[in-house]
Amino acid sequence: MKEIVVGILGAGRIARVHTESITTGIPGARIKSVADPFATEETEKWAEEKGIEILTKDPSVVINDPEIEAILICSSTSTHAQFTREAALAGKHIFCEKPLDLDVERIRETMKIVEEAGVKFQIGFNRRFDHNFMALRQAVEEGKIGEPHIIRITSRDPEPPNPQYIAGSGGIFMDMTIHDFDMIRYLSGSEVEEVYCKAAVLVDPAIGEAGDVDTAVITLTMANGALGIIENSRKAAYGYDQRAEVFGSKGAIKSSNDSTSTAVLSTVDGVVSEKPLFFFLERYLASFTHEMKLFFNYIREGGKSPAGPDCALKPVQIALAVKESVRTGLPVKVE
Amino acid sequence: MKEIVVGILGAGRIARVHTESITTGIPGARIKSVADPFATEETEKWAEEKGIEILTKDPSVVINDPEIEAILICSSTSTHAQFTREAALAGKHIFCEKPLDLDVERIRETMKIVEEAGVKFQIGFNRRFDHNFMALRQAVEEGKIGEPHIIRITSRDPEPPNPQYIAGSGGIFMDMTIHDFDMIRYLSGSEVEEVYCKAAVLVDPAIGEAGDVDTAVITLTMANGALGIIENSRKAAYGYDQRAEVFGSKGAIKSSNDSTSTAVLSTVDGVVSEKPLFFFLERYLASFTHEMKLFFNYIREGGKSPAGPDCALKPVQIALAVKESVRTGLPVKVE
Amino acid sequence: MKEIVVGILGAGRIARVHTESITTGIPGARIKSVADPFATEETEKWAEEKGIEILTKDPSVVINDPEIEAILICSSTSTHAQFTREAALAGKHIFCEKPLDLDVERIRETMKIVEEAGVKFQIGFNRRFDHNFMALRQAVEEGKIGEPHIIRITSRDPEPPNPQYIAGSGGIFMDMTIHDFDMIRYLSGSEVEEVYCKAAVLVDPAIGEAGDVDTAVITLTMANGALGIIENSRKAAYGYDQRAEVFGSKGAIKSSNDSTSTAVLSTVDGVVSEKPLFFFLERYLASFTHEMKLFFNYIREGGKSPAGPDCALKPVQIALAVKESVRTGLPVKVE
Amino acid sequence: MKEIVVGILGAGRIARVHTESITTGIPGARIKSVADPFATEETEKWAEEKGIEILTKDPSVVINDPEIEAILICSSTSTHAQFTREAALAGKHIFCEKPLDLDVERIRETMKIVEEAGVKFQIGFNRRFDHNFMALRQAVEEGKIGEPHIIRITSRDPEPPNPQYIAGSGGIFMDMTIHDFDMIRYLSGSEVEEVYCKAAVLVDPAIGEAGDVDTAVITLTMANGALGIIENSRKAAYGYDQRAEVFGSKGAIKSSNDSTSTAVLSTVDGVVSEKPLFFFLERYLASFTHEMKLFFNYIREGGKSPAGPDCALKPVQIALAVKESVRTGLPVKVE
Repeated sequence: MKEIVVGILGAGRIARVHTESITTGIPGARIKSVADPFATEETEKWAEEKGIEILTKDPSVVINDPEIEAILICSSTSTHAQFTREAALAGKHIFCEKPLDLDVERIRETMKIVEEAGVKFQIGFNRRFDHNFMALRQAVEEGKIGEPHIIRITSRDPEPPNPQYIAGSGGIFMDMTIHDFDMIRYLSGSEVEEVYCKAAVLVDPAIGEAGDVDTAVITLTMANGALGIIENSRKAAYGYDQRAEVFGSKGAIKSSNDSTSTAVLSTVDGVVSEKPLFFFLERYLASFTHEMKLFFNYIREGGKSPAGPDCALKPVQIALAVKESVRTGLPVKVE
Repeated sequence: MKEIVVGILGAGRIARVHTESITTGIPGARIKSVADPFATEETEKWAEEKGIEILTKDPSVVINDPEIEAILICSSTSTHAQFTREAALAGKHIFCEKPLDLDVERIRETMKIVEEAGVKFQIGFNRRFDHNFMALRQAVEEGKIGEPHIIRITSRDPEPPNPQYIAGSGGIFMDMTIHDFDMIRYLSGSEVEEVYCKAAVLVDPAIGEAGDVDTAVITLTMANGALGIIENSRKAAYGYDQRAEVFGSKGAIKSSNDSTSTAVLSTVDGVVSEKPLFFFLERYLASFTHEMKLFFNYIREGGKSPAGPDCALKPVQIALAVKESVRTGLPVKVE
Repeated sequence: MKEIVVGILGAGRIARVHTESITTGIPGARIKSVADPFATEETEKWAEEKGIEILTKDPSVVINDPEIEAILICSSTSTHAQFTREAALAGKHIFCEKPLDLDVERIRETMKIVEEAGVKFQIGFNRRFDHNFMALRQAVEEGKIGEPHIIRITSRDPEPPNPQYIAGSGGIFMDMTIHDFDMIRYLSGSEVEEVYCKAAVLVDPAIGEAGDVDTAVITLTMANGALGIIENSRKAAYGYDQRAEVFGSKGAIKSSNDSTSTAVLSTVDGVVSEKPLFFFLERYLASFTHEMKLFFNYIREGGKSPAGPDCALKPVQIALAVKESVRTGLPVKVE
Repeated sequence: MKEIVVGILGAGRIARVHTESITTGIPGARIKSVADPFATEETEKWAEEKGIEILTKDPSVVINDPEIEAILICSSTSTHAQFTREAALAGKHIFCEKPLDLDVERIRETMKIVEEAGVKFQIGFNRRFDHNFMALRQAVEEGKIGEPHIIRITSRDPEPPNPQYIAGSGGIFMDMTIHDFDMIRYLSGSEVEEVYCKAAVLVDPAIGEAGDVDTAVITLTMANGALGIIENSRKAAYGYDQRAEVFGSKGAIKSSNDSTSTAVLSTVDGVVSEKPLFFFLERYLASFTHEMKLFFNYIREGGKSPAGPDCALKPVQIALAVKESVRTGLPVKVE
């Protein structure tokens, strides 16, 4: 098996998650260099521990290294499109964290460059590779529930981000619901045509003051005729609530939350099960690992991208339509 | 305990359910007479078996009987308002099956007459008295989930009615969802201010040809700020699907379906639990019994009606707004 | 349908449960008379309310009434065998509460008289008619789990009886586990050949002082080769714990507890479901009703008794063997 | 952090599982050498991939390497005791797969040598480190269920081993139930004093012909007064069934099986959840990883062994008593 040499742009939390997946679970892949303009001594120590040869502040060192075949873009969102272009032009296969960009035109142009460069491209919608959602998708694909009629996604964060973060995040729909927009495409095997969103500030007034909402109910009309529901909250007191259900002509399939153990305690106070896992990295760790496996598989074997250019574009288009629906109070067609 | 003498208008399925509840579970109540213009020999036999003294085709025999204190109106929907007026003017306490009428003005006038007559009035929204939904309501009332943020009702019938029935039923929202409109008021303890509905014909084209829809997703905005979701289908292949969840600032409470037994079979084919109960009378039997108990309690003890004039009016107003939303494709304020 | 006239011996709790089942759920059955030597004014009032014609202190008034076709024996255990004999000799069909007697010889003689009299006989092992256990039995009968290998019954009371009661009850195995002895016969479709029991006093020392145990683990060897486990406790803090599992060559089927509702509350404190129903009459009410239906069906239609003479005899034989095993510390063959 | 240099005896399946845990999850540990008399080219390739410096057929190369601080004994059972002695005498910390030996005297002597050498010793009862069983143990330790009264372990393999394997395995109690014997000690925090076992050949006659049983129900009496039940089968058609329940004065805690996803499919055929994980390495993978973490922690931090000499000795003593009980048909005191 030919070794795949990897470079990473960014050395933050998600870069480290992917590094872990690659070093412990992807035989035949080697992370040669990491570029991070904010690299500290701590970053150096980490890179050394992980056997990463080069730590630089200059992304072009990574992008232009002829030995490097694949690049993971784990830097801040505002750099995703630019780095993707540069990597594509340098002929590298690309794994880019979501979202590629918040601007539809920019995404389109970037994807065009990627396409013309003929490099492989995967965007970081890790939930497609979660054991629960994969089981739902598989049942739908195998026709076990017949034609999908109603797809429902319940997606509630355990804790709101701080209002400062919100300002730069593009708001709840670009930051949090974007996963659900991709998920409804994944589960339904269809595209979103129209949305209507009712949103509110019920969790924390500071979120409203920051110009965002924290609670939302979104109705989606799919191209295949199915109706979708996404419901979001920035704060579920009991933990990270990540469920879905697909209902169709022959039945329904639903997933529930993961927890630490199956233990159930029965006492005079009730019958108590464990709460859902709280932290997203704990909840979705295996999906990140699986995502990396599929990325390297895709490089080696070709085929369809596990999450290709359509996943870079469509969820952003849906998010924009939803924002427009919140602004106007009306249903909005997705571009 | 003073005996309460009861008359029933109508001798169909629901009249018999209430008769059963009264004769077997309400001490101190006696059904003296039943009026049904379509009474047959079979009806006579049934009335005799149940110890009902008088079976007549003439409702006025029941309404004007001075011995009768309470009347159950179980006749066809088109007669509900008229019989309610007559019974009120005759000074009888009234239990009327839902809906009172499909016309808001008519409901208002009728409720005014009831109020002026000073008689007790309860409308047949039996699901308020279902063990699962009562448990949800109680948790909400006790503040266990904090302030309600999102209320979700999943309500799917096991089988669509025949298209002929649909024509005379007022359509899915008046016939089926009307229960859910009342339920969201019950669970939230608040009123619906605005609705948006996306609906489709996915189950059976014949339903569309009859001018109705069979699949619907409704977003509701409540006066207390909470957002609501109702999702309906006329056909769930696995049975009668009746679930709800109330999510709030401190947590969430949800109910799942009832089934015949708790048995779980594990074999090479999977781990199989029982399907939800299929037939509404089986699923909601206990709620009908409890409904009757509360009606007779209300007559004896007074207090607030378990399902008073607001329940006669509001769900119909919501249904009309939802129909308008489907017609216009826009959100609609509830009158 | 020919009316079946019924007499009841005893007017205590269980007599009233059966009265309720008959008056509200068995068309064509009429309770004519009740005999109870301890009848009070309260008893009279109850009998009148239920439309019972004769309330007497003399059982022979019931037993010798030629109009009476069926007798329910709901008196104290010590009278069961004698009343069964007298009723059989008087040609009445008999429903007798369990146990028939604590003495094997007496049971045998009584059953011989019943047989010679050619009357129908059913003993009150109501759990055979519980929805959960019936579902298990049905799966076993239909071969869904293949050949039974291990049958497990978990049977824990919510609260111990008072030590005075224990003295007269024949001890935990005759009083409480006797139901489980019959249940393992029912679930396995086989007979118990050998038992070994390890027992202890862990709940309340007063139970030990009364000469009984309150915690027991019993291993049973069935004639069909399956192994059985019964585990008992006199006190489960969380309620009445009544579960079973049958494991076989093709799989397993198990039941769990019933509770008031399906509501599940998720908060920062955990995910909390309802406790099992606490009171045996609440838990098993439907089984008592079904038991009566089957008794009257059996009278009308004939066939095999739903719980015939073998059920009167075998569980007592097993209980005696278990007591012997506790006494000797050794496995004991069932007679 | 000082590096811990590790040697492994054996290069089979379990050696590789531990290698994976160490290389991917234990910072500061390095596997220097592996000894396996049956090493093949495939083994060499594996060792190279994992960065293992020395692959030898001679265990003494590992045991006598002064650089090596800790040895994992993953060779065949018959060599465990001898290697443990040699490693102890060489002053190495020892992790040894279970069982240490099938002979009580030999275990005692070996443990004495280990103790005198003052090296750290841990035996491979990985289930102590499983998320579900740890949750049960924690609840018991925290007093959430009060005093333990009944401890129940359901342990059923998905498929029987082939009869040839059985011959050399010491039989079901030494090979399979030995885990459960340790588990009941772990869950109860107490020792087994007496056992009674009823066993049968119900799965496959070939197992009986090999002198073993395949189905067993074991009653255990604990030193703290609690009663235990272990039930085993060599074949559960639906997968690897690994559950436990601890019932006590204040309540009960139980675990259920792990499966691939939380997906539940509802169709006309029923409500179907996923089967338990089938393969023990899949089911217990995380426990093996955790086990290794605790071993290296124990080396660094000292304290009590996560599974010390008592775990090497006691389960074997219990297994011998159980075998004696099967042979004699009588309860047997554990030595």
